[in-house]
Amino acid sequence: MPSVSQRGEIMPASPIRKLVPLSNEAKARGIKVFHLNIGQPDLPTPRIGLEALKHIDRDVLEYSPSEGLLSLRQKLAKYYKSFNINVNVDDIIVTTGGSEAVLFAFMACLDPGDEIIVPEPAYANYMAFAISAGAKIITVPSSIDEGFALPPVEKMESLITPRTKGILICNPNNPTGYLYTRKEMDQIRDLVKKHDLFLFSDEVYREFCYTGAPYISAFHLEGIENQVVLIDSVSKRYSECGIRIGALITKHEKLKKNVMKFCQARLSPPLLGQLVAEASIDAPAEYMLMTYNEYVERRKFLVDGLNRIPGCYSPIPMGAFYTVVSLPVDDADRFCQWCLRDFSYEGATVFMAPASGFYTTPGMGRNEVRVAYVLNKEDLARALVVLREALRAYPGRTIDF
Amino acid sequence: MPSVSQRGEIMPASPIRKLVPLSNEAKARGIKVFHLNIGQPDLPTPRIGLEALKHIDRDVLEYSPSEGLLSLRQKLAKYYKSFNINVNVDDIIVTTGGSEAVLFAFMACLDPGDEIIVPEPAYANYMAFAISAGAKIITVPSSIDEGFALPPVEKMESLITPRTKGILICNPNNPTGYLYTRKEMDQIRDLVKKHDLFLFSDEVYREFCYTGAPYISAFHLEGIENQVVLIDSVSKRYSECGIRIGALITKHEKLKKNVMKFCQARLSPPLLGQLVAEASIDAPAEYMLMTYNEYVERRKFLVDGLNRIPGCYSPIPMGAFYTVVSLPVDDADRFCQWCLRDFSYEGATVFMAPASGFYTTPGMGRNEVRVAYVLNKEDLARALVVLREALRAYPGRTIDF
Repeated sequence: MPSVSQRGEIMPASPIRKLVPLSNEAKARGIKVFHLNIGQPDLPTPRIGLEALKHIDRDVLEYSPSEGLLSLRQKLAKYYKSFNINVNVDDIIVTTGGSEAVLFAFMACLDPGDEIIVPEPAYANYMAFAISAGAKIITVPSSIDEGFALPPVEKMESLITPRTKGILICNPNNPTGYLYTRKEMDQIRDLVKKHDLFLFSDEVYREFCYTGAPYISAFHLEGIENQVVLIDSVSKRYSECGIRIGALITKHEKLKKNVMKFCQARLSPPLLGQLVAEASIDAPAEYMLMTYNEYVERRKFLVDGLNRIPGCYSPIPMGAFYTVVSLPVDDADRFCQWCLRDFSYEGATVFMAPASGFYTTPGMGRNEVRVAYVLNKEDLARALVVLREALRAYPGRTIDF
Repeated sequence: MPSVSQRGEIMPASPIRKLVPLSNEAKARGIKVFHLNIGQPDLPTPRIGLEALKHIDRDVLEYSPSEGLLSLRQKLAKYYKSFNINVNVDDIIVTTGGSEAVLFAFMACLDPGDEIIVPEPAYANYMAFAISAGAKIITVPSSIDEGFALPPVEKMESLITPRTKGILICNPNNPTGYLYTRKEMDQIRDLVKKHDLFLFSDEVYREFCYTGAPYISAFHLEGIENQVVLIDSVSKRYSECGIRIGALITKHEKLKKNVMKFCQARLSPPLLGQLVAEASIDAPAEYMLMTYNEYVERRKFLVDGLNRIPGCYSPIPMGAFYTVVSLPVDDADRFCQWCLRDFSYEGATVFMAPASGFYTTPGMGRNEVRVAYVLNKEDLARALVVLREALRAYPGRTIDF
């Protein structure tokens, strides 16, 4: 039998997906599983987006342009302007989810052996897309004790080599919920400028900043406008992850041209998703406010609850809908498996994402998990009780209570 | 400014897309452009697929499983059985169009420097996906004089090196409309078996075989079941290219596992497209028959018409909805440009795809174009008249008439 590629062999299997069979088995045993593991909001998609589906009046569901529908790109440009991100319609390329935007950014900027610097913990799939492109992700650790602030910029600079092509940030951050400060963003800008790098900035959670601290887009940084590659997606803000609509935004003309070659090869982004996304941008202010308020409340409730469990610690996340929590356990991978396979409390258990999958430095995040607050408060409350009892019962706990 | 990747630089720009601005300019001058250049059928999407959209009763348009909806994969398995392709639900991975199936097949089978052998002319985007994976496409020319039959198998075998990982065929063929015979498929099987290769088989046009000759799937070949990677798409058969739903089908367990890693990295295929595709599989027999009969008629009409123009020659395509035609011109690229920029007849012109973009051997296909019969007969008739007049007027014509 012919052998598969090395590339496929070294692709990390998703740290969460590995646990899915255990979760399914738990459900088969009649156990209620609280899904704190995923980035799929439970909130409704805007009504106006769902209605758009019912009013598609086409006889042929044909290819859309490779760069996306003009009408969608126009609406996106206007949407970005409302965040003081001044990009033209021509700077916006619609992609099949934010995922494809990351893949095409890497494909069009990085050659095999090229490097990008990424603060960790980081969204696990960046690694997968880097492997697809043959590029190397060089991580620089941030720590829970510092609240996952940007690692010292000198540390980042020390990792720059002749193969370094860019820095990648996710802001607000998945998995930590951290929001980079003005000072940190200026430090990143200076580094990017000094070393003539790309700044890949994944800002899909921009709607969700909770502390009054300003959201600073990479496009707000002066003097590096042509070096920014913005990654965006409508998935999270309109709770429509399944439609697979994202965007890659750049003012780098040569990059734009080359990204378009990858876009043309895959012909077009999903037509139906584009129609829903376009309508969703017109969601009323109340929809966005309702969503926002819901996350604000859940965040407070969840983080308070976590920090009240003995031995648990979560910094206060400033954005997105995740937090990384340290637990009093020997090994969070083992604990998450155990919760699904061996434990239940009052007929329920919790499914969390072990944080080790978000680090590349071995041993880091060993007692940490990522928790997403994509459940309603009542379920979060029950999940917190279950988590507390699980920690009490887990044989590998590191404290007694 | 940071430099882009070499990979992006060497990606071929689409030979057709380059002509799009000229086509748009012609339209802006009020000229009717007959689009013989694209693979977007004009036929309607099945009513049952369009209706499915109007009956989506969901509050959240959420991620679907990375491998696709189970219900869609079950229907696809049943559909394949009707073509005597015996695959299990577990062998079927839903992808974002056939495009993603090709990309993931290459990513999971080929490492940088690996080679696959492809008869040319071939679908231009295979090349783009090979470049994405860092792999090399080694072409073996077929010729219009042989009706684009499979090149001699000895010729193909002579190209096999230690880096050769597979053979790629498209059957029925885009761009030639050729349908491989039993003898040819057996030759391919023997080669694949002898050298332990993958057989990548793009069979998205299987519904469109016109001559009574049997459609032979790669999965019909005995003894290489674990080496076949089938590429499929619902785009062409249900005229729904915009929904971006395809599939990668393999029985190679290790490959399946690794393809799934790429699928998980991009989270999920489009949800809405999957719902439409699933419904479309239930399109009534009359829909498929209507579509089929329409293409049969157009094919006869177009090929007869082309062969009646002095100096033109098209073999009789046995499947798909394309044919490659040789024209009495110095350079088909130049002629296609000239048609859009400098010519019109009774207010109309034609947009054809120069065949050079489907060859990698320099100079091949120089006087050939690909013509798609995705227009109704009346438009095809007018397009044929326009083409005839264009050939009569073109300064670079090689015969006089």
